Amino acid sequence: LTYNPVSPALVERLRRICGPDAVHLSDSPGFARYSHDQTKDTRLHAEPEVVVFPSTTEHVQGILQAATEHRVPVTPRGAGSGLSGGAVPLHGGIVASVARMNRILAVDPASMTAVVQPGVVTNALDAELEPLGLFFAGYPMSEEFCYIGGNVAENAGGGRAVKYGVTGRYVTGLEVVRADGTVMRVGGKLFKNVTGYDLVSLFVGSEGTLGFITEVTLRLMPRPRYRGVVFVLLPDVEDALAIVNELLITERLTPSALEFFDDFSLHQSCRVLGESIPYRDAGAALLIEADSHDEGVLERERERIQAAVRRYSSVATFSAETEDEVNRFWRIRKQVPWSIMNYSSPRSSEDLVVPIAHIAEFVREAKRIGLRYDTPVPCFGHAGDGNIHTSPLRNPNHDIEHWHRIFPQLQRELYQLAHRLGGTLSGEHGIGHKRRAFLSIFLDETALTAMRSLKQTFDPLGILNPGKVVDLEPEV
Amino acid sequence: LTYNPVSPALVERLRRICGPDAVHLSDSPGFARYSHDQTKDTRLHAEPEVVVFPSTTEHVQGILQAATEHRVPVTPRGAGSGLSGGAVPLHGGIVASVARMNRILAVDPASMTAVVQPGVVTNALDAELEPLGLFFAGYPMSEEFCYIGGNVAENAGGGRAVKYGVTGRYVTGLEVVRADGTVMRVGGKLFKNVTGYDLVSLFVGSEGTLGFITEVTLRLMPRPRYRGVVFVLLPDVEDALAIVNELLITERLTPSALEFFDDFSLHQSCRVLGESIPYRDAGAALLIEADSHDEGVLERERERIQAAVRRYSSVATFSAETEDEVNRFWRIRKQVPWSIMNYSSPRSSEDLVVPIAHIAEFVREAKRIGLRYDTPVPCFGHAGDGNIHTSPLRNPNHDIEHWHRIFPQLQRELYQLAHRLGGTLSGEHGIGHKRRAFLSIFLDETALTAMRSLKQTFDPLGILNPGKVVDLEPEV
Repeated sequence: LTYNPVSPALVERLRRICGPDAVHLSDSPGFARYSHDQTKDTRLHAEPEVVVFPSTTEHVQGILQAATEHRVPVTPRGAGSGLSGGAVPLHGGIVASVARMNRILAVDPASMTAVVQPGVVTNALDAELEPLGLFFAGYPMSEEFCYIGGNVAENAGGGRAVKYGVTGRYVTGLEVVRADGTVMRVGGKLFKNVTGYDLVSLFVGSEGTLGFITEVTLRLMPRPRYRGVVFVLLPDVEDALAIVNELLITERLTPSALEFFDDFSLHQSCRVLGESIPYRDAGAALLIEADSHDEGVLERERERIQAAVRRYSSVATFSAETEDEVNRFWRIRKQVPWSIMNYSSPRSSEDLVVPIAHIAEFVREAKRIGLRYDTPVPCFGHAGDGNIHTSPLRNPNHDIEHWHRIFPQLQRELYQLAHRLGGTLSGEHGIGHKRRAFLSIFLDETALTAMRSLKQTFDPLGILNPGKVVDLEPEV
Repeated sequence: LTYNPVSPALVERLRRICGPDAVHLSDSPGFARYSHDQTKDTRLHAEPEVVVFPSTTEHVQGILQAATEHRVPVTPRGAGSGLSGGAVPLHGGIVASVARMNRILAVDPASMTAVVQPGVVTNALDAELEPLGLFFAGYPMSEEFCYIGGNVAENAGGGRAVKYGVTGRYVTGLEVVRADGTVMRVGGKLFKNVTGYDLVSLFVGSEGTLGFITEVTLRLMPRPRYRGVVFVLLPDVEDALAIVNELLITERLTPSALEFFDDFSLHQSCRVLGESIPYRDAGAALLIEADSHDEGVLERERERIQAAVRRYSSVATFSAETEDEVNRFWRIRKQVPWSIMNYSSPRSSEDLVVPIAHIAEFVREAKRIGLRYDTPVPCFGHAGDGNIHTSPLRNPNHDIEHWHRIFPQLQRELYQLAHRLGGTLSGEHGIGHKRRAFLSIFLDETALTAMRSLKQTFDPLGILNPGKVVDLEPEV
């Protein structure tokens, strides 16, 4: 596949389609931000030739028709909060930001659904839903800035997926503009739907490579009124995971969050926050949250969680009841990635998933790999889902060249470990171009071929976000 | 597309692949059952030329390789409990029953997953899971006889979908034999997975038209220990739906079931069962169930449900606490389709879905349509999901010719009503060949074309269950 450069004629056409102020060239202020997402490694960055800001579905249709005729790639962009390069224009061309498609088109409490444009900030939708007693339950942890469209494109998930699942569970309808500019509507305000193949799920998580999402219908859930957190400091990760097992299987609970921290993640986050809890004496921690519409129900849940935790010897246990207390412990969790970034760079945010039975073994072996390379491999994340964020990072005593020498092999060992335990490459951050070369470790050739066929079917010219997820040509 | 008849050479080859006792011809006892599922209309039946019973994935591979070479269609068959003709061999050829692929391959409580062959009866799996405190939460209402493979192929759902969702939510991995006989494995014992396109969801609900499912990995959930039902007799359906709204939005509850009955469904079922509740005074009913791992939590939920119900004037309210009492009210619900069948025939089981805000309007208008045709249109089903089973049936005072004259137009009016309210054709029963001609009412041409492309991609020769969901050639 070859692409043409963006010509002055194409720029002119984009201006006619979207309006002159909606087309930015490299001399526009802030243009550089469109060459990357939250991935810091500059080798994963790439500059667009032009950034365009459609406001309507018709604008997106016009952009894709023009791109098809000119054979120029189009990379859709949400808030740029991704972690796998999904929004990076690997082959240049057009970045189409949905920042101006930020209208909440309908909130329908009686149908428990909302219809939004892709550029709506997740928390902006939440602010509309809160007074109605509803919420979008699949939201990721970057809810303050991420866009709904990006959540859908990456099938993002957050800290409450153990109870509520991830974004995809709540997407009941989509409007998608196809590569040739035609509009397709699939699904609706419907909670069950087997009317033909599940095209909605096919587009969810496809990172803009199969179509351009221009409208999202979300199922809403009753919003819990009460929330409580039990935070436990434990001797090590094995204890933490024994408690996870106890809660889910023996107690048959469905907590709204089950987050774990290894020693490095816990210590580093608490140190940065100046936390007063005795974290230094602990080798792991667990954040267990319950939520409910009813205070009495929450009280019962909390009692059961505390009783289960008491059966293990902990360093310390805290029960958070007020919003401030609950937020205090979530802050420790949310600070982990930033505190790791603070500790040293470069680092790599990994997003591996293993069957929940193998979390302890994964963490133990990941740490061994780190020891062998004499560099930290902190592990933390979603214990209820087996989604483990490992962030191998440079030992500050090593120079950067050393890191670049050891990292590819270290990363491959982590991936092979996850694969050996029945795991997979990404749970919620996506493939983008960052992880594309590693798909073949986790997917057999038949599955990869099937995915390439899907790409070929929906985007025969390869203009939709090329170089992400899979390529039309097999990897070499 | 044209198919060859099943030749003696092909029969011989199937015998070599699966064993001589695994190949049945039309002279075998019980052969007739393979020409239909639970759909009674004989115009929807079709005879296979041969029925084969594979025991292993390799058998299925061999069958599909042979079928590809001979250009003979293969229709996978589960328990035959479907309601849209999915297992009917519309173009003859081979029916491949998974009845012998009935092994539970692994139950892994520590990973909260089970791996099963497609012929496992849903309740047989449940019996294995019960002592472990786990369950497969997406099961349909025919759990006593339906197979897991059929549930997956149809994306079946049941009475507890309002809380737990349908089958697809719990399918985390599949082994699929493709049309050419190659094996593809997708997903695993993983609760989050964005590693490439969502092939698992593409196969779920595809009715055996894209691949032959030979192994299913299911996510298991903590099994609730306690269950309680509040059963309310109400003046009419509008009251029932006002209570649904009150429970979900005002009270923010997530009941484990929210089933509604219109007057006809309620009266007919209670009459057949000889029920002593004062159903004759009621125009509608609601079965509200809560479940929990904890008795105290259940008690709180029940109190809130009862308090909400008391705000409406009901004919009578019952609270069921013991298993026997709970089963009594579920029996009224489960008896509805059978009691309707008892009342008169023919009838047509419909499976429409509308946004939950429009259930009352749908039911009101459906009844008006029935009045205009002077024939009953009972409505009942899953109020929490908007999935309304309407069963238009012949007025016993009319002759069958009259029914056959009015039915197509009556059905079309029902479908147009659902479409006008933003609804869709099927929530959990599937398209099969029964509903295929009506897809174009609910799907726009772009979506239908996309589905045909998917079929073409996965089954270019059209040998996998042809004539179901979509055809390779556009409808005329």
